Amino acid sequence: MRISELSQRSGVSMASIKYYTREGLLPAGERTGYNQTDYSEQHLARLRLLRALIEAGGLTIAHARTVLTAIDDDSLPVYDTLGIAQGAIAGADSPASPESRARLLELAAARGWRVHPNNPGVDLAAGILDRYSELGRDDLADALPGYLDAAEAIAAADLGVTPLAGDRATAAETAVVGTVLGDTLVAGLRRMAQQHLASTALDPNGDACP
Amino acid sequence: MRISELSQRSGVSMASIKYYTREGLLPAGERTGYNQTDYSEQHLARLRLLRALIEAGGLTIAHARTVLTAIDDDSLPVYDTLGIAQGAIAGADSPASPESRARLLELAAARGWRVHPNNPGVDLAAGILDRYSELGRDDLADALPGYLDAAEAIAAADLGVTPLAGDRATAAETAVVGTVLGDTLVAGLRRMAQQHLASTALDPNGDACP
Repeated sequence: MRISELSQRSGVSMASIKYYTREGLLPAGERTGYNQTDYSEQHLARLRLLRALIEAGGLTIAHARTVLTAIDDDSLPVYDTLGIAQGAIAGADSPASPESRARLLELAAARGWRVHPNNPGVDLAAGILDRYSELGRDDLADALPGYLDAAEAIAAADLGVTPLAGDRATAAETAVVGTVLGDTLVAGLRRMAQQHLASTALDPNGDACP
Repeated sequence: MRISELSQRSGVSMASIKYYTREGLLPAGERTGYNQTDYSEQHLARLRLLRALIEAGGLTIAHARTVLTAIDDDSLPVYDTLGIAQGAIAGADSPASPESRARLLELAAARGWRVHPNNPGVDLAAGILDRYSELGRDDLADALPGYLDAAEAIAAADLGVTPLAGDRATAAETAVVGTVLGDTLVAGLRRMAQQHLASTALDPNGDACP
């Protein structure tokens, strides 16, 4: 297909398609004549994946490249691809305090979780505990037991749709897309559940919402 | 305190402090002499809140202003402040498809959730279902039942630390901070739980991690 059709079907502007190609995120199309390039269904699929990671998942261009490279690397076990996806989207700019890290790792160990101290989730979550402290709101960490239960339920659902064995490329893409987009999906559902529980607490017999 | 001390204690650069003041996100300090301005503990608390919302929570300046205005508005019930916080961080740029919205609202109704169709979480979550479809990965939505369970557990933990009655300013701040930062906290815990479950599935008797 021409770049105009690729743009229309993917929802990505022609300028962005050219930019992604220059940046090595999208393979170049096939030159079929002067000023004409042909793109395949594979290009379309890759563009949709890129759009999901960057627009819906909030990944930077650099992180998207890391993740795509991991998906494309046939020598990489799926488990490691998941780790790379986790790292790319962790987004913790600075390391968390040793106290908050230790607190989380202890809570995880008490539940029998096998978590490596380098897991990017540890700094991500511990950084939030540090913010609570800075704000003088250590009481917000009282939600941790409930969050830990929920995180385990989410991860179990994740694993349910991520075959760790089987076709590597599909499994790797599942791990990446599921992890990146799943955060946003859960965040949306959380807001729905918050409204339900808050409105029920305030007005047990009322309708949904004011 | 002087602006240099405010900067050091808050971890926000002097340039950013001046910018936030110009943008109306931080009240001006008290002029105490030529080229000298005095800042209070209230300024420090507000700056830390701003930093948490913008740096850790990823809010834009415009969204942070909306949320702070809601916290400061004494006439606004806490429940409405929560709604404004939800809206500011929802981040769904474009509305989701009617099909995905209907699917989620039906799932919520089947659980007895009271959710208003305007709840910003609906578009946020439904937009992700649309992305799954675009990617030809509708199978990822099989994780929805587990995510819905988890979302209810998260919201219950949220409500546990958010007093809907009592001091309005504290409750409003709790709702905002808990919602903005809680997403990231849960995302971090999810990565830890993923590693635990994945490594246990691959190697039931092994140590944490390769």
